[in-house]
Amino acid sequence: MWPETQGIPKNNLTEFASKGPMEKTPQPKPWIKRVSLEITPPSLKDNTADVDRLVKAIKKSQGSKAVSVDFPMIKRLPERLREYDYRVDAVLFREHGIWHLIDIFPPKPEKNIFGLAVDVGSSTVVTQLIDLSTLVIRDETSFHNPQIEMGTDILTRIHFAAQKGGLEKLQTVLIKRLNQEIEHLAHKHAIEIDSIVGMSAAGNTTMTHLLLGLDPHWICREPYIPVINKPELIKGSSLGLMINPCAPVLVFPNVGSYFGGDLIAGILASGMTRQNDISFLVDVGTKAEVVIGNCDWLMACAGAAGPALEGGVTNMGMMAGPGVIDKVVIDPDTCELKIRTIDNRKPVGICGSGLIDLVAQLFLARMIDLRGKYQAERCGSSLREIDGINHLVIVPLEESGTGQLLTLSQIDIEGLIRSKAAMYTILTTISNTVNIPMKEISHFYVAGTFGSYIDPVSAITIGMIPDLPLETYIPLGNTSLKGAGMALLSAEAREEIFKIRDQITYLELNVNQEFMNLFSAAKFIPHTDRSLFPSVNPVGKEGH
Amino acid sequence: MWPETQGIPKNNLTEFASKGPMEKTPQPKPWIKRVSLEITPPSLKDNTADVDRLVKAIKKSQGSKAVSVDFPMIKRLPERLREYDYRVDAVLFREHGIWHLIDIFPPKPEKNIFGLAVDVGSSTVVTQLIDLSTLVIRDETSFHNPQIEMGTDILTRIHFAAQKGGLEKLQTVLIKRLNQEIEHLAHKHAIEIDSIVGMSAAGNTTMTHLLLGLDPHWICREPYIPVINKPELIKGSSLGLMINPCAPVLVFPNVGSYFGGDLIAGILASGMTRQNDISFLVDVGTKAEVVIGNCDWLMACAGAAGPALEGGVTNMGMMAGPGVIDKVVIDPDTCELKIRTIDNRKPVGICGSGLIDLVAQLFLARMIDLRGKYQAERCGSSLREIDGINHLVIVPLEESGTGQLLTLSQIDIEGLIRSKAAMYTILTTISNTVNIPMKEISHFYVAGTFGSYIDPVSAITIGMIPDLPLETYIPLGNTSLKGAGMALLSAEAREEIFKIRDQITYLELNVNQEFMNLFSAAKFIPHTDRSLFPSVNPVGKEGH
Repeated sequence: MWPETQGIPKNNLTEFASKGPMEKTPQPKPWIKRVSLEITPPSLKDNTADVDRLVKAIKKSQGSKAVSVDFPMIKRLPERLREYDYRVDAVLFREHGIWHLIDIFPPKPEKNIFGLAVDVGSSTVVTQLIDLSTLVIRDETSFHNPQIEMGTDILTRIHFAAQKGGLEKLQTVLIKRLNQEIEHLAHKHAIEIDSIVGMSAAGNTTMTHLLLGLDPHWICREPYIPVINKPELIKGSSLGLMINPCAPVLVFPNVGSYFGGDLIAGILASGMTRQNDISFLVDVGTKAEVVIGNCDWLMACAGAAGPALEGGVTNMGMMAGPGVIDKVVIDPDTCELKIRTIDNRKPVGICGSGLIDLVAQLFLARMIDLRGKYQAERCGSSLREIDGINHLVIVPLEESGTGQLLTLSQIDIEGLIRSKAAMYTILTTISNTVNIPMKEISHFYVAGTFGSYIDPVSAITIGMIPDLPLETYIPLGNTSLKGAGMALLSAEAREEIFKIRDQITYLELNVNQEFMNLFSAAKFIPHTDRSLFPSVNPVGKEGH
Repeated sequence: MWPETQGIPKNNLTEFASKGPMEKTPQPKPWIKRVSLEITPPSLKDNTADVDRLVKAIKKSQGSKAVSVDFPMIKRLPERLREYDYRVDAVLFREHGIWHLIDIFPPKPEKNIFGLAVDVGSSTVVTQLIDLSTLVIRDETSFHNPQIEMGTDILTRIHFAAQKGGLEKLQTVLIKRLNQEIEHLAHKHAIEIDSIVGMSAAGNTTMTHLLLGLDPHWICREPYIPVINKPELIKGSSLGLMINPCAPVLVFPNVGSYFGGDLIAGILASGMTRQNDISFLVDVGTKAEVVIGNCDWLMACAGAAGPALEGGVTNMGMMAGPGVIDKVVIDPDTCELKIRTIDNRKPVGICGSGLIDLVAQLFLARMIDLRGKYQAERCGSSLREIDGINHLVIVPLEESGTGQLLTLSQIDIEGLIRSKAAMYTILTTISNTVNIPMKEISHFYVAGTFGSYIDPVSAITIGMIPDLPLETYIPLGNTSLKGAGMALLSAEAREEIFKIRDQITYLELNVNQEFMNLFSAAKFIPHTDRSLFPSVNPVGKEGH
């Protein structure tokens, strides 16, 4: 089993890239930092202006030639320098070789500075409060993206943005909700808003456009042109964020309309570009997003995997939550189902990882055949025909948390098979394109919270992912958030995201005859070519 | 006589530094420029984002690595690029090695771009509309600084700024009035506001602080610390200026509270720092501001010269205007006065240059002695005692434009003598400090509109300026405005102002015994040491 990744990781971020055998790990050499300054107080012999005096001290401390002070900051400097009696710490960030002043603080070493890493998901936004002084993650919270009200999916939101005031509304609700979260975090940890001196945000191309208030109109229209691929740093105040007004906000770049900053953050977090070995990075969701490569090259592609993997198709499918079945074991002799639910509540449905388990176990117990068809002789009385379609009772009425039977229909299984076949076909296509056999894949990183719950044994069993040694599979959890945190903490990591961006070759999936042939072959459990899955052996078939 | 400098100079600015024997003249190699771009239109094969596509084209055209696009500009780009069908010119400025996008325009070569050079005087603000495409000055206008309502002098305004809302009001009235002027200029020349893509402003330290909305509080308080010495470029929109919102505004740096950007602009305009020869640059006003130096070094000092030189003390003194006496000739035989007035109107008063002429002529005609005392035997019936003080009738009742006698009192003459003595003493002190004898001064640049009207022969006669060959004296007119224009047009000139700033040694005038001795010796016409003024010979004294 994979380790649990739930709960708030309070780990020290110096370990942020410690998962997996990485050869070079970007050290958190911060690009936002707090420095003590030695400022000569003004005198008749040295009548240098306040700003220039401060700039001189910063240049001296950083050995730097260029220092920039934001105009609204200039206005407040004389009063504050005098208030602090010219004894101040400066918080700075570096950009294009120039140090920019974010703020000055009285020299109280106990007052730490903070940053916010944000995964801007279309459904869920996750924030991480990072102590930039100690490099420790102080908190992690999440909330539903309030843009859901204006459209559950990306496309609806793009259309909503085209309405009068629509774009502004989409941006405003998100910023407003983020501000509430920031306020909550600041209150909870007794820190001042001004001590949050930086932020990084990773999301897909549309989500980052909406965060920035940029019109996503052309993202979904041929030839699919975003407004921007590589946003410059933007001040928190320019976005209306309730952090330090001069705090730089790093919005992850995108490769194009269909390959966003969340995936670039994922690549960064995986560490695959710091290894000679070749890795896969897979983000499984409605879309299957796949990256293959190493320190020298990267190829990416994405394709529709169908909502089945996220539990969106089966009539009992749902997102993970209390009472949701997340693990299934079937006794191959008795065909008896054992289920586990989240929080051990009465079962109410099944999530994607539970569904993969269930179908894998059904296959191993030969309750379904390689086409996914129910085998009446194995299923016994649990198999019922409802509206002319075979259904397997997973949870009988008396044990159900919904007051209804929980069943898996033949159609549900077919949906999952199409999804897993799409995923496997995409993996095959991209590895064929770069001419790397599956067995040469050293690491198979699984990104996304959903991916973390998938049991690789089950996923291999249904033929969704290649039959590689189990240690190859490494779940990374929310890599978008992790990558955002890394880029906020480390100048090297921040540079790396632009290298990653420029390195990616995007493979346009051609749904041609060859793809369809691969797809057809993958629509069996685990595959028509059983030699690809030597480890998969249904009960009673050993040695066949 | 010096050439007239009135009227609008419509000269080509490529000659901007052609006055005086300059060795190196900064060529107008613009740092704001318009360039034609070759943008590849989007296609399925090239789905680069709009901003990145534009940036790529700019990088290609400029051979530059870094290009920055302002955020509000990014929002509008997709629509505009499509409106112009991806055929655009970019207007750019360069800063710290990075090209910044100001705006994009459809490729219409007939639509020029413009800049505004502004001399921010405490009494008068002068603007110059410069065509950045042709490097031609298109217009020059001036208006009273509306801050006069809040205080005629700098000190009153600094105090006004300390009131609640005072600073904001001082800035607002100036910006509002500047915007009216910009609107007027744009309308008059049928140009669009957005085509004004740059501005430079030179003024004294307090005036530039007020323009920027920075608190001048500490400028007039020991140890006299400005908020800022070297402002960075600031966007027009940040100042509320009605020019292109992304247009950079260059505000001249200052050396300290008492040596402002207007004088740095003057040094730039004079060209003295591009010569091996040593020059004086003098700005005559209430304060006498003096710079001495060459390409290797610069020393500056300033001292109170008294308002007499600006026509502010004599009872008939006034600023230049219609009916004001600006030239006086006295027949040495008959002691008859011939006056010239501006616009040939009936005389109403006398301006500073007229006063210098008048006193010089009185001295040459021996109507006053070397102490400035009226000589009754030469003045005859024109000399009258009013309230116990000698007055010379300059304009009799019947010729006066005011309905009153115009007279010059003994006290008026004493005021002028104190002023001219202060000026001469400052010149002597600074040349003594650097150990350069007066005769080694190759050029004596006279800055300021007022200075342009002074007849150097008269100024030498009264002992205000050293007795150098007349060709040494070069009036430059409004050098603050000229310098502002130069820095707007030329990257090299813009760099030079910071070199000038850093090069200046400021000489603090110590009003000690030595200074007082020099001052006492200069309080005679032309001086106690007549050998310093060999060219000055009153009538009937030749050969003595």
